[in-house]
Amino acid sequence: MTKLATWTSQTNQVTKRFLGLANQPEIINLGGGLPAPEVYPVEALSRLASEAILFHQETALGYGAIDGLPALREAIAQAYSTTKLSLTRENVLIVAGAMQALDLIGKVLVNPGEEIAVQCPTYMGAIDTWLPREPRYRDVRLDSDIPLTDQTKGVKFLYTVPNFSNPTGVLIGLETRQALAQFANDSGIPLIEDDPYGTLYYDSPPLPSILSLSGEGQPYRGNVIYLGTVSKTIAPGLRVGWVIARPEIIEVLTIAKQGTDLCTSSLSQCIVLAALEKGLIAEQVPTILDLYRERRDTLCQGLTENLSEWFTWQKPVGGMFVWLNARDQRIDTTELIEYALDSGVCFSPSEVFDPVSKRRNGIRLNFTLNPPDALLEATVRMGQATEKYLEDKR
Amino acid sequence: MTKLATWTSQTNQVTKRFLGLANQPEIINLGGGLPAPEVYPVEALSRLASEAILFHQETALGYGAIDGLPALREAIAQAYSTTKLSLTRENVLIVAGAMQALDLIGKVLVNPGEEIAVQCPTYMGAIDTWLPREPRYRDVRLDSDIPLTDQTKGVKFLYTVPNFSNPTGVLIGLETRQALAQFANDSGIPLIEDDPYGTLYYDSPPLPSILSLSGEGQPYRGNVIYLGTVSKTIAPGLRVGWVIARPEIIEVLTIAKQGTDLCTSSLSQCIVLAALEKGLIAEQVPTILDLYRERRDTLCQGLTENLSEWFTWQKPVGGMFVWLNARDQRIDTTELIEYALDSGVCFSPSEVFDPVSKRRNGIRLNFTLNPPDALLEATVRMGQATEKYLEDKR
Repeated sequence: MTKLATWTSQTNQVTKRFLGLANQPEIINLGGGLPAPEVYPVEALSRLASEAILFHQETALGYGAIDGLPALREAIAQAYSTTKLSLTRENVLIVAGAMQALDLIGKVLVNPGEEIAVQCPTYMGAIDTWLPREPRYRDVRLDSDIPLTDQTKGVKFLYTVPNFSNPTGVLIGLETRQALAQFANDSGIPLIEDDPYGTLYYDSPPLPSILSLSGEGQPYRGNVIYLGTVSKTIAPGLRVGWVIARPEIIEVLTIAKQGTDLCTSSLSQCIVLAALEKGLIAEQVPTILDLYRERRDTLCQGLTENLSEWFTWQKPVGGMFVWLNARDQRIDTTELIEYALDSGVCFSPSEVFDPVSKRRNGIRLNFTLNPPDALLEATVRMGQATEKYLEDKR
Repeated sequence: MTKLATWTSQTNQVTKRFLGLANQPEIINLGGGLPAPEVYPVEALSRLASEAILFHQETALGYGAIDGLPALREAIAQAYSTTKLSLTRENVLIVAGAMQALDLIGKVLVNPGEEIAVQCPTYMGAIDTWLPREPRYRDVRLDSDIPLTDQTKGVKFLYTVPNFSNPTGVLIGLETRQALAQFANDSGIPLIEDDPYGTLYYDSPPLPSILSLSGEGQPYRGNVIYLGTVSKTIAPGLRVGWVIARPEIIEVLTIAKQGTDLCTSSLSQCIVLAALEKGLIAEQVPTILDLYRERRDTLCQGLTENLSEWFTWQKPVGGMFVWLNARDQRIDTTELIEYALDSGVCFSPSEVFDPVSKRRNGIRLNFTLNPPDALLEATVRMGQATEKYLEDKR
């Protein structure tokens, strides 16, 4: 076959292999990061889709502006503006899901071989996205005594998921958020605030975004690049997300978007705009929180009953994941997954989230997709798999 | 500001400038490449969208498979199969419009600095797409005495739009298609057959695709990578296109798509599948052909009346564009566009389509978007602009 671009030899085989197996119906899949389909507002979206096409036909069916439907950009700017943060339409780019934002950011900010700062373990999807830019990674510790400015010398940007990190579920606290906002504005190193789970606080009101804490100017001229999405509130299949950043960043991302897909689905944008205008998202959130809170609690109960001998974890206060750390140094979670699949359960091993040291002592479990009984059964199966694995290792 | 990736300094300023101006209502815009919105099947699409969400809620609203809705891949494979060409689902990748296919192809086939073969002038959008890969371009002549194998030594792929080239409107004949199919299969150099206008034949039945002429194996294992779209038949705002290629190519493009946007809008895919199943595309085509044929004829009539003193052209037998060549060597179409905008008309100057020698003696005119009276008036304004331009040059 034709010789492929160099980066294609580096795609991760772990994901490929276990994603294929996870679709078998007898396997309980805690390996993904999917929302529960039963919370999609089906009737409302069906009506909004039909009306968007009938009453706004040219807008819903034609090519749209590269940077997004002006009214939707405006609505997003309004939704995120606070007393400290003045956003206008120029601060907003509509994208085909937040994943596309990561692709565009990689394209415009990273030359091959340049460095990206992350906190390991970090979001696997971001690593996939940036493969074609052939970056190097630096593992930056937010709790380190070494100042961030020293840790990030020469990197092109700092990437973080402050609300319930994917994969660890960790919430970044207010003080660290303030420090990160200050750091971005002072250092000139853009901070990418990836926020798919910002509405999913189960036990307390949401903390302010790093974006809002970096609020400067009108339109906003701070150095945070914020990514949002409707994938966790309305429906991921619409593929609509947004970038909020200073206008110069939005402009260059728009150039990259032109060459990436010309524009985001016009129909999807019209649906999301109508959903925002009619308050559909605000209406949805309490239902989603109740459902996911129960599932988180059930999974953690199952973990206590079936896995506390071998793993430690903290109950997350939000998001979609529980992160397990192996107590026993002999446990290699990339090896363990084979046993788990044999026992009828799938998880994500820590290796795929760690582009720097590929640590194999952790596990990410998703609790949003499966109903409570399946979550409990999954922990039983994981317990059996771990027991068998450790026996075979002896 | 943060230092951007190198390629961002090379974006074309001509497009940026005139695209901004072209949105003014007093300007007749023949510079774009948009379909006529009056042919969108509004009622049918509104119903299909509503039904997709109501009756296939998980499929239409959830994350889909990265490579596309299986039933849609199957339907595309069926639609393109012939007695010589055996396609299966493995040969098909669904993308967010054919532009995304170009992005994915650049990502997986081109390392920075490698060469791409095109025929200049070529599709401007493709050049935009591949900027982040920093390729070099080679201008390959399909009518040259030098064999294609000699012209293409070392290139990563050969890109062509055989049905009514964007920008020139030229149709590649049957013999050349056969030669290109043979070349791709024999040389191992993939041939990208970009075919957005394949349904738009106004005067004769369509020629066979290069893909079909390269038919090998079951599933197809030839070396053509074919790109199709619904943007010119149903509606561009849905952002649905497809790649047809050998399974190994589809697999690696799927890896790139995972990091690009996870999946194409599920709702859009459901609508396109239903449209195919209900024969909506086949129903639409005759209406579109009648409308566009009349517009093409009107534009060419206006050109004869108002521009034949300064330009030559060939009436295209299909597609969306007429290409003008300046008779007078003094005419620089990048200069002329300023006069055209002053006269209330916009076109695309040849420079933006030519990544090798930036020739400035041509013009691309679109005839599908505007009604006949506007097309005639546009040629009058272009005549006035040219006259004024040449006067000022004296």
